[in-house]
Amino acid sequence: MKQTLHPSSFPMRVLGIDPGTATLGYGMIDADEDGMRLVTYGVIRTKAKTPMQERLLAIYVGIRDLLATFEPESAGIEELFFGRNVTTAITVGQARGVVLLALAQAGIPVGEYSPPKIKESVAGYGNADKNQMQLMVRNLLDLEETPRPDDAADGLAVAITHYNYSRFADLTGAAW
Amino acid sequence: MKQTLHPSSFPMRVLGIDPGTATLGYGMIDADEDGMRLVTYGVIRTKAKTPMQERLLAIYVGIRDLLATFEPESAGIEELFFGRNVTTAITVGQARGVVLLALAQAGIPVGEYSPPKIKESVAGYGNADKNQMQLMVRNLLDLEETPRPDDAADGLAVAITHYNYSRFADLTGAAW
Repeated sequence: MKQTLHPSSFPMRVLGIDPGTATLGYGMIDADEDGMRLVTYGVIRTKAKTPMQERLLAIYVGIRDLLATFEPESAGIEELFFGRNVTTAITVGQARGVVLLALAQAGIPVGEYSPPKIKESVAGYGNADKNQMQLMVRNLLDLEETPRPDDAADGLAVAITHYNYSRFADLTGAAW
Repeated sequence: MKQTLHPSSFPMRVLGIDPGTATLGYGMIDADEDGMRLVTYGVIRTKAKTPMQERLLAIYVGIRDLLATFEPESAGIEELFFGRNVTTAITVGQARGVVLLALAQAGIPVGEYSPPKIKESVAGYGNADKNQMQLMVRNLLDLEETPRPDDAADGLAVAITHYNYSRFADLTGAAW
């Protein structure tokens, strides 16, 4: 998908999502060539004892509300790490499915990023640890405190990554 | 979930789903103590080259249409076989997520059944092969031809299984 240039007077609003069934983290930023600003962050939690159908419905409704309230133009989502537990991966896959559906219904393009790619884009190298990542998110967004919980900070890191890649696609004119 | 008894004058309409991203098979039956009758069967196909968001949207819309047209009361879905390829499982998990969401939005309870459980319920033993399964589906539904493609026949087998388990839950009064 070809992105258009976003001059500083028209910042790009980007949603980042760290998907999960028990806790889905999200972060939203406005960004342009002058920098990035926090819009919001948070988590959507569902209880393990609740039937899976209801949990998926809660995640879907939560994402729909977020899109309706803040109207992001573009979104990034963390790729599943395929080496993990298979049962977990399937459960996360289900949550990811309803998130991708909500974004598709709102016409929002999605980029997918692996954990090492997110670390490299935010902290400069793919093996950055959690503290380094949180410090970089704080600095880039000029926040006084580290966003909590961790999943929300992860959502912001995905949003930053997605903006960096979108901007790169702009400058190079790459089909993205 | 507690099911109520379904006397023969009030057959239960059951949807069965064999989930998948490229091909999702479905089958629907009306069933009561006098037997089972075919309502419909088919597949929802999406192309591999289409972006995943669009594929998930097509599956979601297809299921929503099916529910609106035929108004099933209950649904069964095949459980993912966890031993398979992990990447495939995640992709199928995403498709499964949007199906479970559509069913939740319509207030339709869902039962999940493993492949051996489906084989045992339809053909009498958990190692039944594809031909035996198709023959049993034909016989139980009194069909002149074997439903095609295979995924649609699998969807019917899931519907039959779900009815058998629902009925058993009725008779025993088990919380199900």
